[in-house]
Amino acid sequence: MRPLENDLFLRACRREPTERTPIWLMRQAGRYLPSYRALRERYDFLTLCRTPELAAEITVQPVEQLGVDAAILFSDILVIPEAMGLMLRIEESGGPHIENPVRTAADVAHLVIPDPQEKLSYILEAIRVTQERLRRRVPLIGFAGAPWTLFAYMVEGSGRDDFRRARVFAREVPSVAHALLEKIARAVARFLHAQIEAGVHAVQLFDTWAGLLDPDSFLEFSLTYVRRVIETVKAAAPRRVPILLFSRGTAAWIEALAETGADVLSVDWTCDLARARQQTGDRVALQGNLDPTVLLASPEVVVREARKVLARFGVGAGHIFNLGHGVLPETPVENVRRLVDTVKRESPQYHVQRGEASR
Amino acid sequence: MRPLENDLFLRACRREPTERTPIWLMRQAGRYLPSYRALRERYDFLTLCRTPELAAEITVQPVEQLGVDAAILFSDILVIPEAMGLMLRIEESGGPHIENPVRTAADVAHLVIPDPQEKLSYILEAIRVTQERLRRRVPLIGFAGAPWTLFAYMVEGSGRDDFRRARVFAREVPSVAHALLEKIARAVARFLHAQIEAGVHAVQLFDTWAGLLDPDSFLEFSLTYVRRVIETVKAAAPRRVPILLFSRGTAAWIEALAETGADVLSVDWTCDLARARQQTGDRVALQGNLDPTVLLASPEVVVREARKVLARFGVGAGHIFNLGHGVLPETPVENVRRLVDTVKRESPQYHVQRGEASR
Repeated sequence: MRPLENDLFLRACRREPTERTPIWLMRQAGRYLPSYRALRERYDFLTLCRTPELAAEITVQPVEQLGVDAAILFSDILVIPEAMGLMLRIEESGGPHIENPVRTAADVAHLVIPDPQEKLSYILEAIRVTQERLRRRVPLIGFAGAPWTLFAYMVEGSGRDDFRRARVFAREVPSVAHALLEKIARAVARFLHAQIEAGVHAVQLFDTWAGLLDPDSFLEFSLTYVRRVIETVKAAAPRRVPILLFSRGTAAWIEALAETGADVLSVDWTCDLARARQQTGDRVALQGNLDPTVLLASPEVVVREARKVLARFGVGAGHIFNLGHGVLPETPVENVRRLVDTVKRESPQYHVQRGEASR
Repeated sequence: MRPLENDLFLRACRREPTERTPIWLMRQAGRYLPSYRALRERYDFLTLCRTPELAAEITVQPVEQLGVDAAILFSDILVIPEAMGLMLRIEESGGPHIENPVRTAADVAHLVIPDPQEKLSYILEAIRVTQERLRRRVPLIGFAGAPWTLFAYMVEGSGRDDFRRARVFAREVPSVAHALLEKIARAVARFLHAQIEAGVHAVQLFDTWAGLLDPDSFLEFSLTYVRRVIETVKAAAPRRVPILLFSRGTAAWIEALAETGADVLSVDWTCDLARARQQTGDRVALQGNLDPTVLLASPEVVVREARKVLARFGVGAGHIFNLGHGVLPETPVENVRRLVDTVKRESPQYHVQRGEASR
């Protein structure tokens, strides 16, 4: 197979030298794009996720329209809870709702660890269709929700109220909580394995709600299972692909996160990138971390704040430019384009250029 | 004037030895208490805040019903924006709404820096009535919103959408943002000064939304003005009272927060109390930091988690037990009582008892 035309993202994941800083954006395929909204007028969200041709089309849109250095599969972290046996619907407001949330040990026992080839085959098919459409221009990133974050939705039944019911559940019946997290972790590991087999070049774990936990609970319910998923995927993967970990609201835990086995830590905008780099040394690459609300401001602000993020990471390999969380739906496309262009134009100064090292 | 019957809280603020760890709870006067709900059936929230007799009655309720070691004045951080010229109403859902949010330099110019004796006299009167009712049993804490947090509401007009409009405003027109923060800081400092004159024993600044900011913005828009308010209050105060600072979602900034001049840092439940103590040394006392959702669990969980917080701070002076944020409305009163009793019963082991030091 011929090599990727643009492998900047993969080299940065491995902390290898690159000519410039690669950039992609969480939720780069989504509601801020008119081409996405046009599809959403005809199909509901879950239909888009479940139809490989449509998911592939949406995945490729930002690559073609914005020139980002990686594609991320258009999907949702809640496909796993659904494949495990929960009934998912997306409410008018856009929020997820689970009809039969997990509330008892019996509920946990009834959940299955899905065979991805069977229950999640539509996603594996979407990966294959996407790869055809990408024609090896940029790498494709697969993903899954991290166990704690999926647990939070599965017990709460929605994304409301800071998941207080899920947090109480974990404290009240820790053995049941661990049985559930164990099952989720196995499902997630199998799913990521299948995505790698289907051809993704990297995988990202989203622990979006890790920041709700106190220190003991974070170690017990979030970090333990992130580590387990990463170990399982690494031990069994058909080939070695970079594993990225987005753990939100956990800037104070950066050193512990660097010990999970993840190749890249994706950090939110509250994290000091310079300090994170010091703290993690050469153990991981760092991804991030522009505040998504910057993209709601004027183009001048976008350029100024993008420069700050580049400067904060500083000179050297191992930085992937991204937002600190997903692109907001009301973001002007022009600003996203400006951001991508700015990073491409201004990041070479932070990298050693070919031939320059020997000057 | 005779001394306070119980001055544990004030001694802990000054990191002086105490026989046990004092405890009070953010939002201890509020909706989870049946006696509060009974009043709320007859009066709306703002009427309760604005009527000194009612505010005093609510303030004293948790002292008499739960035996906490400090009272905190029943009020709201948005009294300052209102006194500065904004029109505040509380929506049915319980969320605040500002009719005329700040959007331009002209809006900022129109805001006044209120004379508390005039525009906020109802609060100063509530302090005097409360002191009479407390009969020097426990100290009374006054408070105000920190400048950044008030700014967020004043620009956004509500507490929705993670204050994205306020965050964009700060980036887009920083000079206008600083003019506004400057005015707010002066209003807050004057207000705290007046509360101290009226007789409160300590004051707490609430920077509830500091954790939304990236590192540069946190230093520029939050920390600068927290420091300024504290300096101004300290320089002019009629007597020296402890200043407590609650900065939420900023566990990674604990060392910078300890340099603001605050006597006590009130930390949320994501903060590692043992690490925070190491990082701040003997510069500040620490207040916190039980996850409020613990109080939604069983009494056994409440006791177990309370013990963990005590153990995490460890042996020595300078800990005030509190939650990491406010009591949730659906909290059973019995659990709150259990928490207070547990801290009173189990914390003496973490303190040197009289006579024990010489053994």
